Amino acid sequence: MMGRNITLAMGNGGEENYLLLQKIFKHLKNEYLEKAEDGTPLPPLTTPIFTTDSFTISPLFFKGGDIGKLAVAGATNDLAMMGAEPKFLSLSFLIEEGFGLRDFEKVLKSIKKECEINGAKVVTGDTKVLPQGSCDKLFINVSAVGERVKNYSQENIQEGDLILVSGDIGRHGSAIFIAREGIELESELESDCKSLFPIVKELFEIEGVKALRDATRGGVSAVLNEWAKEREVCIELEESKIPISDEVRGVCEILGFEPLILANEGTFLAAVSPESAPRVLEVLQKFNPNAQIIGEVTKSYPRRVVLISEWGTRRFLDMPTGEILPRIC
Amino acid sequence: MMGRNITLAMGNGGEENYLLLQKIFKHLKNEYLEKAEDGTPLPPLTTPIFTTDSFTISPLFFKGGDIGKLAVAGATNDLAMMGAEPKFLSLSFLIEEGFGLRDFEKVLKSIKKECEINGAKVVTGDTKVLPQGSCDKLFINVSAVGERVKNYSQENIQEGDLILVSGDIGRHGSAIFIAREGIELESELESDCKSLFPIVKELFEIEGVKALRDATRGGVSAVLNEWAKEREVCIELEESKIPISDEVRGVCEILGFEPLILANEGTFLAAVSPESAPRVLEVLQKFNPNAQIIGEVTKSYPRRVVLISEWGTRRFLDMPTGEILPRIC
Repeated sequence: MMGRNITLAMGNGGEENYLLLQKIFKHLKNEYLEKAEDGTPLPPLTTPIFTTDSFTISPLFFKGGDIGKLAVAGATNDLAMMGAEPKFLSLSFLIEEGFGLRDFEKVLKSIKKECEINGAKVVTGDTKVLPQGSCDKLFINVSAVGERVKNYSQENIQEGDLILVSGDIGRHGSAIFIAREGIELESELESDCKSLFPIVKELFEIEGVKALRDATRGGVSAVLNEWAKEREVCIELEESKIPISDEVRGVCEILGFEPLILANEGTFLAAVSPESAPRVLEVLQKFNPNAQIIGEVTKSYPRRVVLISEWGTRRFLDMPTGEILPRIC
Repeated sequence: MMGRNITLAMGNGGEENYLLLQKIFKHLKNEYLEKAEDGTPLPPLTTPIFTTDSFTISPLFFKGGDIGKLAVAGATNDLAMMGAEPKFLSLSFLIEEGFGLRDFEKVLKSIKKECEINGAKVVTGDTKVLPQGSCDKLFINVSAVGERVKNYSQENIQEGDLILVSGDIGRHGSAIFIAREGIELESELESDCKSLFPIVKELFEIEGVKALRDATRGGVSAVLNEWAKEREVCIELEESKIPISDEVRGVCEILGFEPLILANEGTFLAAVSPESAPRVLEVLQKFNPNAQIIGEVTKSYPRRVVLISEWGTRRFLDMPTGEILPRIC
C-alpha cells in the first residue's frame, strides 16, 4: 500500500497519513507514544528544563552522522549542558514530497539509537509533507524536556575559573563543507556529532563545574564571547593548547576558515573551578584524549576574549559576524 | 544596523543573530526567556502534557489570522483538547533568506497576542535562516507544555454519548484555498483560526465531557473516523444538523469540495454524556451560535461513521484518503 517515496497524501490527516505514522511508531514504540492523542501525558516533573531546536542540514547523511542523530544529539545536548538528564522528546518532521521512504527509515533508526544513548523517549510528534520545492528534503524539530540534576549556568562563571574543551574543535563544520563541495581528502575527516549526556553524567559527580556549553553555530568563539559579555569578565586562551586535528587544520589552511568559529556538534566548553579542573579533564580525556585546559577567566579585558600566542603576543577573538563560512545549515 | 530583510548572517550564531534574537525577545519578554540559556528551567509540573506541531501555510497572512496566530492557537489547542491549561511554549523559526523584517514582526505580535489569550509564555526558542529556495518563506514549530485539569481522552467515549461541534465547519480550509487562488467572493469568508482554551476552561466546570478534538487536517471526518475505530463504536451524524455557513457551502458546491473533510483551526468536536450535552451546548453557543449537537455514539456499524440524511437514508463517511483538496499547508 506504500510506495517507495513519501507522497503529499501521507501528510494529510487521512488514511495514508495514518500508515506513515504507523511506520514511525514501529521504530519509536514506547508506552508514552501509545497514550499520545493530541498531546502526551508525562509523569510529574520536579525540576524540568525545556528546550527546542530545528535541524536542517545538507547533505542529510554525512561522515559521523545524519540529520536524525544530529537532531536528537543536538536537542539532548542542550539539556545536558544545563545539567539536566534528557527524558522526553517531541519530534516534528517537515518532509518534501518525493523523499525516499528508505532514507526516512534510516533517519528513524538513527533517532531511535540516539534516544537509547540518552535514555530519552520520543513521546509526541507531528508530520507534514510539503510540495516539491517548498522545503529542502527533510527538516526536523526536536523539543525536549529533562530533569535538572546540577545547576550548570553561565551565571556561575567567575574570575579564576579555568576553561576546558572536551575535544578537538571544528570537525562538524569542516566535514559538512567537504561533503557538500565533494572535496576528496586523503585523510578521514568525520563530524564530531555525538550525544554528550553520557560524559556529562560523569561530571555530575564532581563539584566545581560552573557552566557547560556545546560550541555549535559560531563555534568556540561565539560561546566564549557570550560568556565574557554576560559575566563582564575576560577569557584568556592559550592558542597552542586549543586542540585542532591535522585534518581540520589542513582544510582551514586551504580554504581560509577560522577553526575557532567552525561549528561543532559533540564538543563542549566547560568553566570549572581551578581545584576541580584536573578531575574534570580526566573524565573528558576518557571520552576524547584531545580534551584540554585551554584558558582562564580573568579581569584583564572585561567582555573580551583574548588569544595568547606561543610567543606571548595577544589578540582579541571577536564575536563572529557576517555570514559565517562554511554555512552548515 | 539591521536592514529590511532577514539575512543568512542573522541565523549564524554570531553578532547579527544576537540582534535578531533581541528583536524577538523584545516582543515576547518574560521572566523565563530572561533565564534561558541552551534551555529554560520551568517550575515543578504535577500533571504535564506535552505536544508539538509544525506550521507551514501559504499565504502567511490570511483572513482571520496569520502563521503566528495559527502556530500558537494550533499548539495550545492540542493541550486544551486534552483537558490541559497551556503554560509554556517553545518557538522555533525556519526563515528563508530575504524574508521581510516587518512581516516577521507582524508574526511576532500575533504570537504575543495569542499567548496572552491562553495565559501561556514562550520560554525557549530557536531561529535558523536558510538560503533562498530551501524553505518557503517561514515555517514555525511550537511545542507546548501544559498542566492537565481534566482527563479528556478518546478512551472515555462510549455508546450513548452525544457528539457536538463547536461551530460551523470548513472555514479554514476554504478561506486558505480562496486566498491562495485569488478567488474574489462577494461574501466574507474568514478562517476560524482561534485559541480554544477560553472555551474549554468553561467546560472544565461541567461533568460528563468525555473527549474533545479539534478538526484540523482531514476535518470532522478524520476525527470521527479515528474515534469510531479506536473505540470500536459507530458514530451516527444527522446531516442536516451539521452547521455549514452559506459561504463555505457555496465554495464547496462550485469547487467540488466536501465540507466534512475541510480543515478547521478553531472548531472542535466533543463527545459528551447525554445528561451534560445541554449545558455543554449552552457554553459552546455562547462563543459561537452555530454550535450544535450533530450525532450520537451507537453500536449499529462498529468502527464506521454514518451520515443520516433528512430523508432518513444512510451512507458511510469514510476516513479521508488520497491527496485531500484543497491542500492547506
